[in-house]
Parts: sequence; C-alpha cells; structure tokens
Amino acid sequence: MMTAMFDRIALIGIGLIGSSIARDVKELGLARDVVVSTRSADTLKRAEELALGTAYELSAADAVRDADLVIVSVPVGASEAVARQIAPHLKPGAIVTDVGSTKASVIAQMAPHMPDNVHFIPGHPLAGTEKSGPDAGFTGLFQGRWCIFTPLPGTDAGALATLRAFWGALGSKIDEMDPEHHDKVLAIVSHLPHIIAYNIVGTADDLETVTQSEVIKYSASGFRDFTRLAASDPTMWRDVCLHNKDAILEMLARFSEDLAYLQRAIRWGEGDKLFDLFTRTRAIRRSIIEAGQDVDVPDFGRHSLEKKA
Amino acid sequence: MMTAMFDRIALIGIGLIGSSIARDVKELGLARDVVVSTRSADTLKRAEELALGTAYELSAADAVRDADLVIVSVPVGASEAVARQIAPHLKPGAIVTDVGSTKASVIAQMAPHMPDNVHFIPGHPLAGTEKSGPDAGFTGLFQGRWCIFTPLPGTDAGALATLRAFWGALGSKIDEMDPEHHDKVLAIVSHLPHIIAYNIVGTADDLETVTQSEVIKYSASGFRDFTRLAASDPTMWRDVCLHNKDAILEMLARFSEDLAYLQRAIRWGEGDKLFDLFTRTRAIRRSIIEAGQDVDVPDFGRHSLEKKA
Repeated sequence: MMTAMFDRIALIGIGLIGSSIARDVKELGLARDVVVSTRSADTLKRAEELALGTAYELSAADAVRDADLVIVSVPVGASEAVARQIAPHLKPGAIVTDVGSTKASVIAQMAPHMPDNVHFIPGHPLAGTEKSGPDAGFTGLFQGRWCIFTPLPGTDAGALATLRAFWGALGSKIDEMDPEHHDKVLAIVSHLPHIIAYNIVGTADDLETVTQSEVIKYSASGFRDFTRLAASDPTMWRDVCLHNKDAILEMLARFSEDLAYLQRAIRWGEGDKLFDLFTRTRAIRRSIIEAGQDVDVPDFGRHSLEKKA
Repeated sequence: MMTAMFDRIALIGIGLIGSSIARDVKELGLARDVVVSTRSADTLKRAEELALGTAYELSAADAVRDADLVIVSVPVGASEAVARQIAPHLKPGAIVTDVGSTKASVIAQMAPHMPDNVHFIPGHPLAGTEKSGPDAGFTGLFQGRWCIFTPLPGTDAGALATLRAFWGALGSKIDEMDPEHHDKVLAIVSHLPHIIAYNIVGTADDLETVTQSEVIKYSASGFRDFTRLAASDPTMWRDVCLHNKDAILEMLARFSEDLAYLQRAIRWGEGDKLFDLFTRTRAIRRSIIEAGQDVDVPDFGRHSLEKKA
C-alpha cells in the first residue's frame, strides 16, 4: 500500500466510473477518507453495501466539505447542477475534476461556478464497459487506458501534476489537448460508433419481414457486435448527444455522405469501389492491434470464451 | 472416431470456411478421402502443408470426380464459374452444396448447370471470423452455430437428411427457409452490419481534423468494435454486396431513414426521443445473451484477455 495521496476524496456520482475509481483508491490506499455521494438513495445504499467509501452523503454539498480532491462522475447534462451545489462548500486549494465524455460543454457548465481558490481541471478517462451502476465497476478498469485532460489557460502546474499522478496511480496513460479538439476526436472514435450502433439495432427491431426472434437467433453473423455498444447507459448517451451536438452532427453528415456513395456503388454494381474500401479498412484493424488497442484474437476471443461456457 | 459418412468429399475453395470443414472432417473421420481444390497454386500448396486433405487438385473438374459430397466454399460471385466447371464431372447421386452468404443468387448461378442426377442443396453455415485463408480455419468453428438450408422444391428427402447429418456432426444447429427470406434475414443480421462497419471505418480514415493516429490511439472508446467486421475478407464482401443487392438496398434505406430521424433529434435537442431509442436497444442485447448468442461478459471479455497479455 502506497502512502495516501489525499486526506479526503469526494466522489460525486458512483456508477461504473465512480465505483471503479473508489475500488482502485481503496485497493491502492490513495486516500484516508473517501466520501461517496449520489442523489439516489438506493444507489447510495448499494455503494455502502459494497463498502466503496468511508462515508456516504446524499448531498453533494456535504460530501465535498474538506475534500482535497473532488471527482464528478455524473451524466454530462448534470454537470451544471452539481457545480452549483458544490461550489460554496469546496475547500480552498481543492482539486475539482470530472470524467465527462464531452469537454467544452462540461467546462461551460462548471467553470463559471468554480471559486477562484480551487483548481478545476476537466478530465476524461477513456474507459468503461457497456454495463452501468455501482455494481458494474471493477478494480483495474483504467489500467493501460488513456485519460485526457483539457486544462483551462492558467491552470496551476502543481495541481495538474498532482492529478496526473493520481490517474497515473490508477494505471492510466495521460494526454492533454484543448477541449474542442477532444470533442472532435471523441465524436469520431466514440460518439458516432455508439449512435450508429443504437441506430442499427433500432432498425432491426422495427422490421416487419424479419422477426425479432430471427434477428436474435442469427445475431452472431455480425449484428451482435453492435448490440454491445447499444446496451450502454441511455442517460449518459442522451446527454453526450445533446452536449457534443456540433461535432456529432458534423461526423454524422460525413458518415451519411460516405454511406450514400457506398449505396450507389452497390446499386450500380461498382465492385471495384467496394473492393477498394473493404481493403483499406482492413489495414486500420491491423494498426489498432499493433498499437495494442485491441486483442489480437479472432472474433474478440469469443470462441475461447464460448468453449469454456 | 465415427464411421466415415462419405467415401469421398471434394472441397472446392479452402479459405476460412473450407479449411475449417476440412479440419473437422479429418478430426471426426467423416470421409475416407478429402480432395481439396482451389484455383490458386499458392493456396493449394498451403493447404497441402497444413495436411487439410488426402488429395489436392488445381482443377475443380478433376476434384469432384467420384466425390459423394461436393462443398463449394468460394466467394458467391464465383459460383456460376465453379458450377460450369464441375457439372460435367459430377458423380451420379452426388450431393452438391455450398456455404455462400447469399442464396437466391447462388441458386440462380448454379442450379441451371446441375445435372438431374445429382442433389443440389444450397446451404449457409452462419459461422466465421474476421480472418481469412486456409490458416484462419479451426476445428469446432461450426459448433453450436446455425446452418441454414434453402432446399429447392422437389429436393430428395434422403439426400437432405444426409446433408443435415453431416452438418450436425460438425456441431451445427440446422434450419431451413426459402432463399428469399434467407437473403432478407441475412441482409439485416450480417450484411448491413458489415457494410456499416466498413463505412464508419472509412469515414474515420478520411478525416482531416482528427489524425489517423488519434483514431487508432483512442479506438477503445467504441470505434474498435467496428474494425473487427471491417477487417473481413474484401472479395467475399464485395460479392455479397453485388449478389444480395435488393435486400441490402432495402435495409440501407431503412437504416438511413432511421439515422435521419436520430440526427434531427440531436439537432433539435429532443432528449426524450434519444432516451427512448437508447433504452429499447438495451433490451435486445439482453435477449441475445439470454439466447446464448453472445458471451455474457462486459466488453466481449476483452478485459480478462488484456490482463493476460
């Protein structure tokens, strides 16, 4: 166990991300006290049953008192409400960070409320699964994953170094970029894939000529790959769509344009155009595996998991 | 080892599917002789190095002589050429089947060439991975997977029972449907997912504001799920697009219509519409897992695979 980095950490929100942070902090001994707060009494009770913290508060305002590090892990649309609640009660010198999937919107919602004597440093750990809630978290979720900070101009170097060290202790690799660029990057690598996955699963669910039971029965031929992303938390993803609107609409427009080109090639039997695209995309998969960003086994390794089952 | 079901099986095409059949036939002792044929000398040499058969022929015509079962496992666009080549040399009473992902087109290409004294029974095992070629095959690929037959009117019941028993021995669950319905079902559960995956990976590859290295680096936040399907064999998928055109264009039109609705909801901030869709799709994932059609572990079980790495 390493020496506690913080006397007191407050976790506002205790879903998949918040509860994974709580588990790592506990296992690594990164804080003496961990105050868990969520506005749902049931979820707070569950967090206590799971022993995720050392204290439990329904009120975010009460939770942040005397905390040296405050981590806000709520759907991005709730950021302003949380900022308003906690702002008057923050300890001078405290670091306030978040884990939201959109950054320009979170900054616009939170920064105006933050007192001058705290360090507000927006962050985004690129980690998670399609599960949600306090039971879905696990130790090691952030191991080897990226955590992107989008610090505001004039951010205190010491506070930033402390926060980097914290996420580094959780096993994350750290990057920094400006919030607008973050939002564009995430729009293509995360938001568009989720929206497309939700959409295709919805399309399949609405067919009249193919029954839902047929879709489920034969889903292993490709469709099931999309259902994982489409099983992600609906509140979180509604908020992402509403709070990264411009970047998402831009990526959607490009995607649709490309799809129209592909559709036309199919209609007119232009095999060469199809073959060219299908060859180009194969190379990207190889690069992702070479970069250690996906497992190098066929079918995501399902075959070996299925054999065991 | 069970008694050989066939004296001689001819495998025309020895990629992922053909070579997986070869491995199962060998392991289970389902045939005395297995003749492997492919028009590529390099691939044939590799098949021999892998000891996938008992004889190797560049000519499909030579391969099918005296074969009791002929399995055509080639890109669907090559079906007619293969049918023409083998037709004059088929043994009377032989069963001829295929593994193509589209059925109406394969029937239109092959049936007119088949002699009256052979049993042509089109089939489609719903199995595979994103890998291709003779090295990508493995024993047990068909275990627990569906194999769909689309028999023509008047198909001999005995021949059909024999072919069902063969695929049953490979571990497949058997279904029968008419070719047009098969093509519609596969258009939504397999063809559309692959086309969408190819398309989004292409869109990401073409961006100017987000670099390709950023796409690769941060791909674990959703994008990487699509790259698996988009790494599938380009020739196979070009042919699928060209040979199931009508059903694919119908599914693409529905998908695009639904996406336009979603895009409009994002533009106008209609959170309820987004939330409704994102909730509905979650239920489908649950049904797929309950039906045993995907593994019930977060993130396709990658986390445990990554930990081991």
